[in-house]
Amino acid sequence: MSNDTLLERRHRLLGAGAPLFYDRPLHLVKGEGVRVWDSDGRVYLDAYNNVPHVGHCHPHVVEALADQAGRLNLSTRYLDERILDYGEALTATFADEISRVSLVCSGTEASELALRMARACTGNEGVIVTDFCYHGNSAVVAGLCTAFEMPEGIDPRVRTIRVPEADDDPVEAVAEVAAAIASMAEVGMKPAAIFFDTIFATEGMPAVPEGYVEQAVALTREAGGLYIADEVQPGLGRTGAGMWGHQLYDAVPDLVTLGKPLGSGHPLGGVVARPDLIDGFAAKAMYFNTFGGNPVSCAVGHAVLEVVERERLMENARKVGDHLQEGLLALGNKHATIGAPRGRGLFMGVPFFAEGDGKTPAPDLTKAAVNGMRERGVLISRTGRHDHVLKIRPPMPFSAADADQLLAALDETLDSLA
Amino acid sequence: MSNDTLLERRHRLLGAGAPLFYDRPLHLVKGEGVRVWDSDGRVYLDAYNNVPHVGHCHPHVVEALADQAGRLNLSTRYLDERILDYGEALTATFADEISRVSLVCSGTEASELALRMARACTGNEGVIVTDFCYHGNSAVVAGLCTAFEMPEGIDPRVRTIRVPEADDDPVEAVAEVAAAIASMAEVGMKPAAIFFDTIFATEGMPAVPEGYVEQAVALTREAGGLYIADEVQPGLGRTGAGMWGHQLYDAVPDLVTLGKPLGSGHPLGGVVARPDLIDGFAAKAMYFNTFGGNPVSCAVGHAVLEVVERERLMENARKVGDHLQEGLLALGNKHATIGAPRGRGLFMGVPFFAEGDGKTPAPDLTKAAVNGMRERGVLISRTGRHDHVLKIRPPMPFSAADADQLLAALDETLDSLA
Repeated sequence: MSNDTLLERRHRLLGAGAPLFYDRPLHLVKGEGVRVWDSDGRVYLDAYNNVPHVGHCHPHVVEALADQAGRLNLSTRYLDERILDYGEALTATFADEISRVSLVCSGTEASELALRMARACTGNEGVIVTDFCYHGNSAVVAGLCTAFEMPEGIDPRVRTIRVPEADDDPVEAVAEVAAAIASMAEVGMKPAAIFFDTIFATEGMPAVPEGYVEQAVALTREAGGLYIADEVQPGLGRTGAGMWGHQLYDAVPDLVTLGKPLGSGHPLGGVVARPDLIDGFAAKAMYFNTFGGNPVSCAVGHAVLEVVERERLMENARKVGDHLQEGLLALGNKHATIGAPRGRGLFMGVPFFAEGDGKTPAPDLTKAAVNGMRERGVLISRTGRHDHVLKIRPPMPFSAADADQLLAALDETLDSLA
Repeated sequence: MSNDTLLERRHRLLGAGAPLFYDRPLHLVKGEGVRVWDSDGRVYLDAYNNVPHVGHCHPHVVEALADQAGRLNLSTRYLDERILDYGEALTATFADEISRVSLVCSGTEASELALRMARACTGNEGVIVTDFCYHGNSAVVAGLCTAFEMPEGIDPRVRTIRVPEADDDPVEAVAEVAAAIASMAEVGMKPAAIFFDTIFATEGMPAVPEGYVEQAVALTREAGGLYIADEVQPGLGRTGAGMWGHQLYDAVPDLVTLGKPLGSGHPLGGVVARPDLIDGFAAKAMYFNTFGGNPVSCAVGHAVLEVVERERLMENARKVGDHLQEGLLALGNKHATIGAPRGRGLFMGVPFFAEGDGKTPAPDLTKAAVNGMRERGVLISRTGRHDHVLKIRPPMPFSAADADQLLAALDETLDSLA
């Protein structure tokens, strides 16, 4: 079936507003490791998709899924060993203080639950977020969203702070948190939580000044609020520096939200939290998630965690990430439009600027580069408030040779666009 | 591993507040068709779980899941035939007016999305709900919940109406909808939607007076609001009278929410809606659901739909439901504590009353009956505002012989409790 026919059927069924990548969309039919194939048999290096975290269609994950689906799949209202085995293995990767988990179906459900817990347990309503953030698609979570316009608008209980860049004054940046809290106090409100995506993915992956996160969290806690770390993007070893993005900083979150990579494609999310928050919320709310923590999802989550550990994917992210970063720096010496790479491990951002000036964002060039890379068989996307940051976020078994293929394609693409 | 050990691990990992069935919880390890097995090898007739809609571990569903998981699993930002094939088959079971779909991961996500669409597209904020309802577990949806206490309390934009019983005056019942709209108008608000679970499951399955739903919907529409039909409980042929619960009434919904049974255990939900609502919302909001509509979920949803049709499970629900109802009526003649059965098809409620009076709810007896049934190898639960309604809601391939087994166990249980 032609792409035109597929597109026509899609528009009739989902509406023309359903987001698609590329002006000429791609029809993919097969995935394996870090590669995907389109319906014409063309192969692409996937340097973008973090959902298939341990690689497309990893046999260990597919086997665990199929095996448990053939045995039993029910809600957690019955006793089951799968959730215990998986939950214990998962929480073992966090600090001792956050030892309990509530499993859900998506990052959005995790953000919802963490925020409901924070508000119910602190008795406070305010939320502090960064000024270009995204934490999910429910109404309340959309009310926290500063990156995209939402029909609900920003919730009046929300205060936004500017995300500092590496060379910004940390004192000024932290002062914005104090100002947010003071602004809440003016209307008799206190913070329930500060919400940080610990790699600041939507924000364009700035390297925040040292001590910034820690001081922002400390101020929030002094005012009675909690620290919610959103690990939907950086989690499960992607930064190469630790299993979780928040481990880059010296502050243990009260609540952690998990999503996308957790089930390597299977709808799985969760909140890892302090026991008193899980219990405090349960005492106040009848919360039950029908699919959350079902044995099939737990078998899949556990298999993903096992692959991350057995295949040493965190170490791979560090090594290949370093290699990629060197290559990107070298390309920056050749192409005056490329700025210094941002991010960590296998989550890298490359800002594009107007020729040689190093500060005027070049979104059109970035878009052309994304399309040029696709023509050269590499899938990639872009992010940041000016849409000028190439977003490199491949499945985790991405090798140094894969990085070289990406770098060569980028070099060629930039040559062709110069 | 003993149940005590499992329970201890569970409390440490999930907290003691995570909901469990039974005072002595059940450790299930295997499921097939309408039967499940515990860790001691004991078999139970499952007369409660609607999540495994087409039967536990249906081979056609497991095969579709495993097959697609081994090929490709990505987000809907690429073209894919699976979502088109499934979505077209799914929407074909609805009235022509509601021809578009947005797939999500759970009933909660469906309620969230439908409500966001209703508010964004009408420009109104008010919501009318029944006085003992449950539509999901996010903050905004918890704010609509009148059946359970939530820390958020009822949202000030919500008005509740009493659900009428079959013998209530329909004029009075409809007048409550008018009063809800008038109460909104007093604060300058209009209804965005009226939300009906079309079998009124949490409400205890009352048979509402003829014309009630239609008139309530008409009044809401006159005031500028939409009709959201929640099909998470009655959907996919369960009532035996149609594929969807709202087809029991002469009013086509503007938005339909789908959840639990859709993936027969796989986390899948959706909103089926009028095209202008899908498009109107897309124009106002950057909505994207990472896992929603992925090819694996679509393969599973499609397989479930195929089994419902091939195995004529809707017809089965009607026939076995009628048989069950006759048996329950006969039991009511023998046991003075049993009231008239409610519900339709394979979703039946049996109210228990104090000996012979037919009106004083008997929750303790109902609880004892649920436990007595378990001892006799039949899984069942209870519902309703007084917890006095036995809830019979088995997987759909429930046979007349299975119904007879349930009836015999109920008879014995009531004899033993008399």
